[in-house]
Amino acid sequence: MANTTYSYEFKILKVEVSEDGVAHVEVHRPEALNAYSKQTWTEIGECFEQIKRDGRVRSVVLSAAGRMFTAGLDLKEALTGPLGKKADPKEDAARRGYYHRLFILEFQDAISAIETCDKPVIAVIHGGCLGIGIDVISACDIRVASEDAYFMVKEVDIGMAADIGTLQRLPKVVGNDSWVRDVCYTARRISAKEAIAVGLLSRMLPTKNEAMDAAMETARAIASKSPVAVVSTKHLLNYSRDHSVREGLEYTALWNTLAHNSHDMATAVMASLKKKQARFPNL
Amino acid sequence: MANTTYSYEFKILKVEVSEDGVAHVEVHRPEALNAYSKQTWTEIGECFEQIKRDGRVRSVVLSAAGRMFTAGLDLKEALTGPLGKKADPKEDAARRGYYHRLFILEFQDAISAIETCDKPVIAVIHGGCLGIGIDVISACDIRVASEDAYFMVKEVDIGMAADIGTLQRLPKVVGNDSWVRDVCYTARRISAKEAIAVGLLSRMLPTKNEAMDAAMETARAIASKSPVAVVSTKHLLNYSRDHSVREGLEYTALWNTLAHNSHDMATAVMASLKKKQARFPNL
Amino acid sequence: MANTTYSYEFKILKVEVSEDGVAHVEVHRPEALNAYSKQTWTEIGECFEQIKRDGRVRSVVLSAAGRMFTAGLDLKEALTGPLGKKADPKEDAARRGYYHRLFILEFQDAISAIETCDKPVIAVIHGGCLGIGIDVISACDIRVASEDAYFMVKEVDIGMAADIGTLQRLPKVVGNDSWVRDVCYTARRISAKEAIAVGLLSRMLPTKNEAMDAAMETARAIASKSPVAVVSTKHLLNYSRDHSVREGLEYTALWNTLAHNSHDMATAVMASLKKKQARFPNL
Amino acid sequence: MANTTYSYEFKILKVEVSEDGVAHVEVHRPEALNAYSKQTWTEIGECFEQIKRDGRVRSVVLSAAGRMFTAGLDLKEALTGPLGKKADPKEDAARRGYYHRLFILEFQDAISAIETCDKPVIAVIHGGCLGIGIDVISACDIRVASEDAYFMVKEVDIGMAADIGTLQRLPKVVGNDSWVRDVCYTARRISAKEAIAVGLLSRMLPTKNEAMDAAMETARAIASKSPVAVVSTKHLLNYSRDHSVREGLEYTALWNTLAHNSHDMATAVMASLKKKQARFPNL
Amino acid sequence: MANTTYSYEFKILKVEVSEDGVAHVEVHRPEALNAYSKQTWTEIGECFEQIKRDGRVRSVVLSAAGRMFTAGLDLKEALTGPLGKKADPKEDAARRGYYHRLFILEFQDAISAIETCDKPVIAVIHGGCLGIGIDVISACDIRVASEDAYFMVKEVDIGMAADIGTLQRLPKVVGNDSWVRDVCYTARRISAKEAIAVGLLSRMLPTKNEAMDAAMETARAIASKSPVAVVSTKHLLNYSRDHSVREGLEYTALWNTLAHNSHDMATAVMASLKKKQARFPNL
Amino acid sequence: MANTTYSYEFKILKVEVSEDGVAHVEVHRPEALNAYSKQTWTEIGECFEQIKRDGRVRSVVLSAAGRMFTAGLDLKEALTGPLGKKADPKEDAARRGYYHRLFILEFQDAISAIETCDKPVIAVIHGGCLGIGIDVISACDIRVASEDAYFMVKEVDIGMAADIGTLQRLPKVVGNDSWVRDVCYTARRISAKEAIAVGLLSRMLPTKNEAMDAAMETARAIASKSPVAVVSTKHLLNYSRDHSVREGLEYTALWNTLAHNSHDMATAVMASLKKKQARFPNL
Repeated sequence: MANTTYSYEFKILKVEVSEDGVAHVEVHRPEALNAYSKQTWTEIGECFEQIKRDGRVRSVVLSAAGRMFTAGLDLKEALTGPLGKKADPKEDAARRGYYHRLFILEFQDAISAIETCDKPVIAVIHGGCLGIGIDVISACDIRVASEDAYFMVKEVDIGMAADIGTLQRLPKVVGNDSWVRDVCYTARRISAKEAIAVGLLSRMLPTKNEAMDAAMETARAIASKSPVAVVSTKHLLNYSRDHSVREGLEYTALWNTLAHNSHDMATAVMASLKKKQARFPNL
Repeated sequence: MANTTYSYEFKILKVEVSEDGVAHVEVHRPEALNAYSKQTWTEIGECFEQIKRDGRVRSVVLSAAGRMFTAGLDLKEALTGPLGKKADPKEDAARRGYYHRLFILEFQDAISAIETCDKPVIAVIHGGCLGIGIDVISACDIRVASEDAYFMVKEVDIGMAADIGTLQRLPKVVGNDSWVRDVCYTARRISAKEAIAVGLLSRMLPTKNEAMDAAMETARAIASKSPVAVVSTKHLLNYSRDHSVREGLEYTALWNTLAHNSHDMATAVMASLKKKQARFPNL
Repeated sequence: MANTTYSYEFKILKVEVSEDGVAHVEVHRPEALNAYSKQTWTEIGECFEQIKRDGRVRSVVLSAAGRMFTAGLDLKEALTGPLGKKADPKEDAARRGYYHRLFILEFQDAISAIETCDKPVIAVIHGGCLGIGIDVISACDIRVASEDAYFMVKEVDIGMAADIGTLQRLPKVVGNDSWVRDVCYTARRISAKEAIAVGLLSRMLPTKNEAMDAAMETARAIASKSPVAVVSTKHLLNYSRDHSVREGLEYTALWNTLAHNSHDMATAVMASLKKKQARFPNL
Repeated sequence: MANTTYSYEFKILKVEVSEDGVAHVEVHRPEALNAYSKQTWTEIGECFEQIKRDGRVRSVVLSAAGRMFTAGLDLKEALTGPLGKKADPKEDAARRGYYHRLFILEFQDAISAIETCDKPVIAVIHGGCLGIGIDVISACDIRVASEDAYFMVKEVDIGMAADIGTLQRLPKVVGNDSWVRDVCYTARRISAKEAIAVGLLSRMLPTKNEAMDAAMETARAIASKSPVAVVSTKHLLNYSRDHSVREGLEYTALWNTLAHNSHDMATAVMASLKKKQARFPNL
Repeated sequence: MANTTYSYEFKILKVEVSEDGVAHVEVHRPEALNAYSKQTWTEIGECFEQIKRDGRVRSVVLSAAGRMFTAGLDLKEALTGPLGKKADPKEDAARRGYYHRLFILEFQDAISAIETCDKPVIAVIHGGCLGIGIDVISACDIRVASEDAYFMVKEVDIGMAADIGTLQRLPKVVGNDSWVRDVCYTARRISAKEAIAVGLLSRMLPTKNEAMDAAMETARAIASKSPVAVVSTKHLLNYSRDHSVREGLEYTALWNTLAHNSHDMATAVMASLKKKQARFPNL
Repeated sequence: MANTTYSYEFKILKVEVSEDGVAHVEVHRPEALNAYSKQTWTEIGECFEQIKRDGRVRSVVLSAAGRMFTAGLDLKEALTGPLGKKADPKEDAARRGYYHRLFILEFQDAISAIETCDKPVIAVIHGGCLGIGIDVISACDIRVASEDAYFMVKEVDIGMAADIGTLQRLPKVVGNDSWVRDVCYTARRISAKEAIAVGLLSRMLPTKNEAMDAAMETARAIASKSPVAVVSTKHLLNYSRDHSVREGLEYTALWNTLAHNSHDMATAVMASLKKKQARFPNL
């Protein structure tokens, strides 16, 4: 029953779960500057679906290998795929569109798995974080970065609107609509310093290593709490973001009626009275 | 018809309404560090329901007596109540759950009365503001604090998700989602300085007395305005938070069609032309 | 087919469209401090409806002539119009209300045209921006100002709640609810410096001229992008603000299925590979 | 623990709870043709709030004494109350409106208690069912009537729109919008026969006594089922009526996660295998 | 101030308003079997917008001249317009789509004006009612027909989904989803007899003349009621159809707070006590 | 590219796709009276997901083999699965609940695939259709049955509320709320005759064979239409059921902007002018 270190098997992602329940997910395609190919986002979807059902994982750190977080969508692949397929004049546009819409929905679902996995996810950004990178980090809970990080909502520069979550989540992540619109319309470069001023980042640290350490420390702090409490908190924050206060309260009352059946409350209170650190079983 | 000072009668709350229409509500249970017992939140609910229907009250200051704003939920009481009731193995969990949900909803309604009373409420925080304290101040309109104030979304530390409003309102109060999630998952201590940087507080003052003075000054400024205008503004801000812009506009048009029947507009404009201070009758 | 400078014809508004697709809309009623008469907001509505359907316009700068952005509603006119009409005791209040509500809705629609025109609008504020001025700039995408600018949510001071969009949009524009409520309940003066700190402004510049230059530069940057991408981004940001993340994603997938039919993506990617500046046809 | 017959104490309502858990609520103001005074609807609200929390009540039959179900609102009282209060020319219309709205909301809440009590309510209608009577029976689950019953959405005939639930619930009760609009605009008389054809009634019986017997039989059938199952079914039907299918499903999954903790499922399945009648404890 | 007969001026529509406040709108393009050209639906939109603001109109009868209600969309025109425009291979599909969507929205708005005009509209159908005809009559309040009437949701037969309201309103008009889907997927012919059985029609009469008489009688009955009450009822029915019961109730409370200011209630009650027919002033 | 008959491979389901694009899905577990095991509903989910992406399938007939449509949930299996797992007193109820909720959601998703596959599904019911059977047929588009069919919303009889769609969809399928609540609270037997009267069924035929023939005929009629038109119609009907009329219209305008790019409209109109039967390519 003890938590031992183990891995998930993926081609692009490297996933290690530590003894204390922190999963480290690393996008590992440095030779392509971690550009998101279909394989990449498919693995992201599968990985976070697996995390959702893995009771030993309590929090997640998401980072990337090599020179930068991501150069964005793998354009080379995209242009040979649905986006780049030259419209066959004989092909029916409505029919092609029917399947193209399903393709975008599938892509969105893969990235949304970060949000729906119910375990808090901390993104660590270094170097460039472009295009799809913003969609990805907006779906995370907490963002920390090294000083060299920079961000670009790059999509308008390739002639399209961001469609994998940036336009939905970024305005709810930072509380400055004027800024969000500025960076989405102009695709201009955002420094880490600007990102922290506007609230896109929680913390900025000199180097990637330090940013990883800081993220890991927070992830371990979260992992030491009752997983029932943590998972409930993430689930309810996401539900409440998308509903009125009244509906959020009603859903929360129902959810907690169930969650209050946990022994964790007694464990936590008892430990607190004894001034000891409580230890909670896996989910 | 003149506004004279008067009080509301409660066991834990001390409520004084000043001549100029400012109600001061003080949670007065210093011996228990203002821990919220059922009696406390029941009185909060009743008090703000009374304020809603008291035409003489135009704005409210909410503070607490003794060493801190609140140490959080009265755990001692909670553990002998519904939360602490050891599940009787013979008792049916679904039946117990049915009533437990009603209990949470009742608790939520009491705190939501701060929001639905339609008169602006300014919270003054000093010392600790833990757990349920965050639910309470998130339901207020404006928050000011003394420098010694600190905040903790304490619930995960007692093995549960906050369920009396924090997860619904806090993300709409401050515009930094990364920060909200950080403090909700880790239950870490937030200083007044951090709280003001992130927008949880409007103002920070050296001492509780100064914070009270500042809050009172704002409350009196609000109380001097047309109560029709002020009450409408609070009601419409809350409605609009929970609806689309289009629905908010339509509801506002209907509401103001009614509110425009007030004589206050003529009074206000006339006074403005005469460079005089207008005086408005009670609601 | 070349973009040549041309104008729209209005009485109060001066509208020039530059060669590069930036429309400059100037409220020109300096003798009345740009107070909003019915003529003013009717023209705003018509102008932005025209902009929506004018494929040559790609971004907009909105400013005002004379001493200030606007002194607010034209009270003199309002008092001789529906708001000021002394209730005829013989007139039926419900009947009058039926038409008064339609009047407010019409006013709202005119200002909302700034939002629904789909082209990004940058407001340049100098001097006072009072009352209806806040409704107007909240409907814009980006706000820049000169140092002398100041703001007042003036409505409570004339005995009413703001009803042309401020209460719906301002809280979604800035991420500090405590601040929004403070300024809406007290109608106090907000300096440009405070406005930038809270996120109401993107940029503050010493003079109006410099603010205009900065706005124009951003407008031109936007106008140089694919208009399909830009218009889609604005439309989807507005849709997503008013829907859950899930609904925003589904609508976006459908929208982009259509938008991906544009040649702009190929143009943009090709230019990017050739390190050249892409040029996109009008909408 | 045995279910014995007992009563609730009210002035106008007569409430008897039978041994098998059926509460019979009778509106008893025959001398006024059961016209709804404030006392009447206040008691309706309190009675159904009590029923919600009374674990012994499993289903409800609502009927009325004397010549008819109800002649509608107690106009005599209404005209001496808020509706009839002659507008004092000195009184401020906006202020009066603020409280009048609260009065309507209070009235609505009282009748909505029939819906929110979670126990199925069967209305038995005889003779006239006018005005507020339609609001009341639309909030019930099942409607049966005697042949002499007739119905009128009477409100337009007293110069107002129905505002206690008819316009919200009636169109969701019957599936014929053309018919709903016809009877709401014209206030014409609807016979029991027409009511059954359109689905407003489940059953029509020759006499009131027979209708009562039929209602009681259904009520007893419901009362013999698992109260967890029945209460859940009503609660979820009401929730789902007001939400999308997807949201209804998600809420249902959460609710049943809790409800599946009941022993009633084992009891029911066991009894079914033994071909016996299961007996379930009270809620 | 007396109600005298008068007309509206249109090219295709013939509109007569009778002394008692009934507007008769006749689609008069018999030579084309009342096929809907752009001119037709533009006039429908303008006509009902005018009706909304014409206080003398209290109810409406909508019928068509010649052999049938309508043969559907004017295909000949459509094929030379946006729908039929052969996609120019050089034209950008996304750009064309942007304006095509605005075209559909404009068409929808014109037909929705029937719903948003707030005065009850009774459709009289004779002969065929195909395609757009279903969109039109679904936006009406009440439908009556002659025995020779037949209906076809014709759109799938021209290779498209109905997009001017049928798919939104028809399922809310009749309470038989299985039937709605059957007729929408197969475009099969529906007789008047079937239409009345399923609730699409309120009444069926032998001839068009008799159907007109029946519609006129209902329209006059509605016109004799308080216009405040009638307009409020239609507005609130439409609002409530699109919102939860709880939101419908809250909006209704606010609306009626305003509408209760009418003298019509006193007039109506007084007349009722005197057993006289009340007469109400125009809106 | 010609449509030839082919099958899908499943263990319980037998799926044949005919030359004209009609898929016949038969639940084939007659030895267990087609009780729904986990294998059954997992296959339903996978089968309809496959149908969604199979461009050759244009409509679906869903029936069952043996003595009846289904006896309901496979209780024997359920009691040895999550529902029947005796609560281990050492197991944490909140943790068990977390995964149990995911299980219900998975079950719901499988049945909802019938709705989200976008191709019309016609259910053919014979013999009993109990419990989960109602969830299944409510997710279909059209229902036909043989005279011997009967229906029971059986869930309350096994001590639970229906949770796989009945409570969400049944009230939207039939327009008689009183009836829906009656049959959901009492679990009473509903004959085919009653089902057709209330609109649950479109057609009733003497035998299962005749019902199959009728369903096949309708399915073939649908399959002969433009698949773009049919798929759009189903998708938009489902979207509109769950949104306001206004939102349904806006989504429809966007959807059809895309769908109007199909050649099917030209094909259909051309064929219509030539009085020929149009033939449309697969999706």
